[in-house]
Amino acid sequence: MTNGHHSDHPAASGAAAQHSGDTYQRFLTDFFGVIAYGELSAFERMSSDARFSPTLHDRATLGRLAVQEYAHFELITARLSAMGVDPEEAMRPFQASVDAFHDRTRPADWYESLMKSFVTDAISDDFYQAVASRLDAETNSLFQGLKAAEQSGEILLGRLREALADDPRLASRLALWGRRLVGEALTQAQRVLMERAFLGGLLDDQGPDAGSVDAKVKSLTAQLTRNHSKRMSLLGLTA
Amino acid sequence: MTNGHHSDHPAASGAAAQHSGDTYQRFLTDFFGVIAYGELSAFERMSSDARFSPTLHDRATLGRLAVQEYAHFELITARLSAMGVDPEEAMRPFQASVDAFHDRTRPADWYESLMKSFVTDAISDDFYQAVASRLDAETNSLFQGLKAAEQSGEILLGRLREALADDPRLASRLALWGRRLVGEALTQAQRVLMERAFLGGLLDDQGPDAGSVDAKVKSLTAQLTRNHSKRMSLLGLTA
Repeated sequence: MTNGHHSDHPAASGAAAQHSGDTYQRFLTDFFGVIAYGELSAFERMSSDARFSPTLHDRATLGRLAVQEYAHFELITARLSAMGVDPEEAMRPFQASVDAFHDRTRPADWYESLMKSFVTDAISDDFYQAVASRLDAETNSLFQGLKAAEQSGEILLGRLREALADDPRLASRLALWGRRLVGEALTQAQRVLMERAFLGGLLDDQGPDAGSVDAKVKSLTAQLTRNHSKRMSLLGLTA
Repeated sequence: MTNGHHSDHPAASGAAAQHSGDTYQRFLTDFFGVIAYGELSAFERMSSDARFSPTLHDRATLGRLAVQEYAHFELITARLSAMGVDPEEAMRPFQASVDAFHDRTRPADWYESLMKSFVTDAISDDFYQAVASRLDAETNSLFQGLKAAEQSGEILLGRLREALADDPRLASRLALWGRRLVGEALTQAQRVLMERAFLGGLLDDQGPDAGSVDAKVKSLTAQLTRNHSKRMSLLGLTA
């Protein structure tokens, strides 16, 4: 085998472009796959938990938020199909780790489940937006569209504030729960970043040297943490 | 107090028309209320059970069916709101009995949950269509629209046939389960008919004498049972 036939070799510029296109396609497949599976799981958990809502009004509201997650799931899987990728194949590699995340963060009651949606949906959104902003315009605009459609954060915030006003003892429990959730969510985000091809996509404006990869992950983690702290302040809780 | 001031008195024709309008409004409120709560419950249960699907494909499919139930819930509650009725007030009287129905019919696994949706959604649809066909054109067309949108029966049928072909031992278990479900569903339908103002609406072309009410309930029950038996035949099961 000669260098000329080695598709990783930069001299073969057509092959290299092809390779780079393949790499980007694999990256997008992973990216959409993990998001799609996350949305499907969020849909199922939110709609299951809706049943334990204290009022019919809350049940209907949580149901609507869950349906929104499903609509996002459908948007992302439609994009995968349009790329010629089987959405189930794309989701499968992330199934175990997303399921494990949910197993580690089982809400003890309805308020904890509300808090879990509030905290983890926002961190996921921040994370995916940060990645999408470095991607092609089409992908980026898909994500901006999802963000614009996403009013669930405000609805959850409003409902949690109401619950905290009704029962001040909830505050210490939810503050503790929020810290546990953010820890698990950041660990999960880092695991996804480290294990999959994401990192290349995330850092492709920086070159692949390990120092900058590490710095970039740290900087993203710090940003996610700052945003989380701001959201906790909106609830009157310390992060 | 004189008869002239008693709004139930037929001689006061304006008041009587008003009273009859009020009765019809109360009837529609009950009718939409029980359906809306049934759809909300079906949405929550179907999407919760989706999580236990054997494949990602099944999870996505059941999720889509659940979302369709939620869309029906929203259509019906929008109609209630348009009537000036609080949808939660309209649903509340039916909450205990629908919840009790679900408690009595807990599926033991995913296949029983599929079968439960297949059997009970179809019976509910038949029941509501039978009532709606006797109502005003607007209400009737709302229900015809829901029925046209409802392809979930075919999807559930196809998935159940596939499961039965894969594992013939399922047949006897699902046949037994189907009999239990139809029994509970018919009991539930009769309870709703007897307890609420439905009966007046259902039978308003016949006059309110008790003999005809009883005959009408029996005839409707027989029709629901025949339709159920046909659906079981499509699965190769005896009802």
